[in-house]
Amino acid sequence: MNNSLNTEQNNNKQGLSGIVENTIFNVIIQLLILASAIAFVLETEPELEEYKFYFLIADWSFLILFTIEYVLRIYSAPDKKAFIFSFFGLVDLIAILPSLVLIPGLGHLPGFHVLRILRFLRVFRIFKATRFILAVDRMIEALGEVKRELLALVILSTMMVYLSACGIYYFEKVAQPEHFGTIPKSMWWAIVSLTTIGYGDVYPVTPGGKVFTAFVALIGVGLIAIPSGLLASVLTEARVEERLEEEHENRDS
Amino acid sequence: MNNSLNTEQNNNKQGLSGIVENTIFNVIIQLLILASAIAFVLETEPELEEYKFYFLIADWSFLILFTIEYVLRIYSAPDKKAFIFSFFGLVDLIAILPSLVLIPGLGHLPGFHVLRILRFLRVFRIFKATRFILAVDRMIEALGEVKRELLALVILSTMMVYLSACGIYYFEKVAQPEHFGTIPKSMWWAIVSLTTIGYGDVYPVTPGGKVFTAFVALIGVGLIAIPSGLLASVLTEARVEERLEEEHENRDS
Amino acid sequence: MNNSLNTEQNNNKQGLSGIVENTIFNVIIQLLILASAIAFVLETEPELEEYKFYFLIADWSFLILFTIEYVLRIYSAPDKKAFIFSFFGLVDLIAILPSLVLIPGLGHLPGFHVLRILRFLRVFRIFKATRFILAVDRMIEALGEVKRELLALVILSTMMVYLSACGIYYFEKVAQPEHFGTIPKSMWWAIVSLTTIGYGDVYPVTPGGKVFTAFVALIGVGLIAIPSGLLASVLTEARVEERLEEEHENRDS
Amino acid sequence: MNNSLNTEQNNNKQGLSGIVENTIFNVIIQLLILASAIAFVLETEPELEEYKFYFLIADWSFLILFTIEYVLRIYSAPDKKAFIFSFFGLVDLIAILPSLVLIPGLGHLPGFHVLRILRFLRVFRIFKATRFILAVDRMIEALGEVKRELLALVILSTMMVYLSACGIYYFEKVAQPEHFGTIPKSMWWAIVSLTTIGYGDVYPVTPGGKVFTAFVALIGVGLIAIPSGLLASVLTEARVEERLEEEHENRDS
Repeated sequence: MNNSLNTEQNNNKQGLSGIVENTIFNVIIQLLILASAIAFVLETEPELEEYKFYFLIADWSFLILFTIEYVLRIYSAPDKKAFIFSFFGLVDLIAILPSLVLIPGLGHLPGFHVLRILRFLRVFRIFKATRFILAVDRMIEALGEVKRELLALVILSTMMVYLSACGIYYFEKVAQPEHFGTIPKSMWWAIVSLTTIGYGDVYPVTPGGKVFTAFVALIGVGLIAIPSGLLASVLTEARVEERLEEEHENRDS
Repeated sequence: MNNSLNTEQNNNKQGLSGIVENTIFNVIIQLLILASAIAFVLETEPELEEYKFYFLIADWSFLILFTIEYVLRIYSAPDKKAFIFSFFGLVDLIAILPSLVLIPGLGHLPGFHVLRILRFLRVFRIFKATRFILAVDRMIEALGEVKRELLALVILSTMMVYLSACGIYYFEKVAQPEHFGTIPKSMWWAIVSLTTIGYGDVYPVTPGGKVFTAFVALIGVGLIAIPSGLLASVLTEARVEERLEEEHENRDS
Repeated sequence: MNNSLNTEQNNNKQGLSGIVENTIFNVIIQLLILASAIAFVLETEPELEEYKFYFLIADWSFLILFTIEYVLRIYSAPDKKAFIFSFFGLVDLIAILPSLVLIPGLGHLPGFHVLRILRFLRVFRIFKATRFILAVDRMIEALGEVKRELLALVILSTMMVYLSACGIYYFEKVAQPEHFGTIPKSMWWAIVSLTTIGYGDVYPVTPGGKVFTAFVALIGVGLIAIPSGLLASVLTEARVEERLEEEHENRDS
Repeated sequence: MNNSLNTEQNNNKQGLSGIVENTIFNVIIQLLILASAIAFVLETEPELEEYKFYFLIADWSFLILFTIEYVLRIYSAPDKKAFIFSFFGLVDLIAILPSLVLIPGLGHLPGFHVLRILRFLRVFRIFKATRFILAVDRMIEALGEVKRELLALVILSTMMVYLSACGIYYFEKVAQPEHFGTIPKSMWWAIVSLTTIGYGDVYPVTPGGKVFTAFVALIGVGLIAIPSGLLASVLTEARVEERLEEEHENRDS
């Protein structure tokens, strides 16, 4: 209709800058992100050491292509400054930061360490993919609606971890000084237990510590599981409302 | 009423093909599926090695009976082609695929390996049972309603696993190269930790790795638990709507 | 009001049989159940061996008092037969079954084994406590409302356990025959992993087994967590409806 | 408007007592709580032993400042007695209890043990932070709305732990007397398994114990997860109602 006609005119008028809304362009970017992530993983395999040269070429290709994408996105953004400092603008920038190692004096002066961290930044390229997940907007909106509750639950969970660590330290520090000798050490136990991961590298052995764990586990495990349920509920509700509005609109027209 | 009268007439007219809607026929099929699953499990017990011959007979009986069922279901389907390529049509076909080993040259030429895989396909016979679970339709419908959110959550969870694996690789590769020496290796840790299974075969030992795990665990565990809550909410909601509709119909009539 | 007046008259008329509705009587029963459970636990402590005689006296006291309670409950039930075969009637009967060891020939003929099992039945006395939990009725009602979905989820979970066990058996039987040598053995792994307990006594070690576990864990863990969310949703909903009805009644009057 | 004008007048009139509603005052208190919690954690690090003197000074500062805060809060409370015995009043009191060690004869007479416990009470200072979490009120309200269901679930969970411990004791006491020799010992296994932590220090090894665990795990894990889902549902619902009321008010005015 009128709308699509306008878009087409826009594309014609804007020329190169319209490309960022082109489907094929976006599919290529998605494939590049995926390829970049796979290459990052495979690079660490010592068995693929012999293909090192090809990984280097792939890496430079990704860097160049993502840089072109970044420039195009800035060029085609209505408000260039707003885009650069938006979430996606910053992610796009971080994705090409490893190219900074080319600037002489930055990659060489502070030595290998900065280089390694800069190269490791490539891992965040995966965030570029969030641009293409359709339901993410709705999820962020749902997140926004319960942000007060989520903040409260995060604070309460942190308090739970703190109190659990302090408590188990009190009970176990004498029996197992290597695992519970300080509160920061005990915090590792608190995290592993309250998330119910329970690796089994640390666990209480004294009767007091076990009774304390029983209470902490039953309360804390429940507390830490609430945010997931909350987000699930809000997501469902958001979906219901959306459908009700659609029905409402249909009835009106 | 009129409807059931029609069905009865149909049964009389169609003769043999009406059998697939017969209750006794379906109960027998259900028992066969259960027996087949139990036989498959018991076959692997070395203590029951001496009954091998009986298992072979049972196995051939299941194969023949399921083949008869498959033929009957095709015969009685209104649209034969649609049935063959439907989910249940394909499951019914896979259930009798092990009979392919009878075709000379297929079971013998590529040797024992293909035979073993073909025989292992019997495990999928259990999917035939889904035909008889009443609430499955409603669950698939509920699944369909949140498919966009589910897809988004699956992508986000995959990204979480990827980022966790890359991060822990960064922190632990030097300290534990046998467990975290490559990112694919680290992914095993990420899966076991984010699902909160926590076998305890791999866990971080460096302070950096432990702090990283603390953050990843608190966020990732919550993220991966959302889909369950979402499905539970949607199922409840679907049930409420169904009841409201029933009440509405009752009021109208 | 009129209602409480009637109850009082009932109490007076029925004499002894009214006692089962008496608050003090019920508090005493609750304390007896608690005391019986605590005694059952402490009896197993070897350090308390010297108090064996007192435990025996307590045990006989519980038996006699629960027998009196049972007789009173039958006596005061409007429909005696219905009570005897109701859930609470059967629980009350099981609670006093250990007294059967008194019947000569039953406790002695089949020997120590039957005696031990009969004595172990005391553990089910705890079910007598469910009579006093106010919200249990509402929970059973909520359970009833989603019984079709729950049944479907139980069947799907069982299928998930079956398929997981068969799959891991396929991948790990050669590498770890002591843990995955048969499908029944592999089922222990499936249960421990899908419930996310993850003791760490059994876990896959082959690459194939680990990749299989990754898929099974992400799907199966979610599947098995749905029933809890479903029950939680239905409980909340039941509460909302109850309140709406109350408000509706208040508005009408 | 009128309201804020009144508050300002109040502040002027009340003088010192109005300070407890001052934003800067409350931010300082929050920072003090955080600093106190961090100091408590770092104190246990043997590497920071050399800064012991500074920790002592910090500790005394916290004590003096929290005492001043407590006095101010009592002074500015409309109903002083109500405040002292309120949750926050008691928390504020516990936070300064370690100062009791100053009273001669109390810190010295019963010796080091009482002193250590009194000093350990500082851990509860973290509860002072709950005063500043905005959504806590709504959460406590939500908790109150489902208190009957929560109580029932707590009782049922306790019964589940009791029955699981008794059952596993029956199956495993002969095979693993060191872990399952008494029911109290078996309770540790029950807690660790039903919360799905699964450290791996204790697990069943007999076939009977494993089959029992399979049933207990599938039911018990689900039961213990219900409260989290319930609270999440109620929190979402409370939020929806709040918004509906706001919309209602907007429409009316």
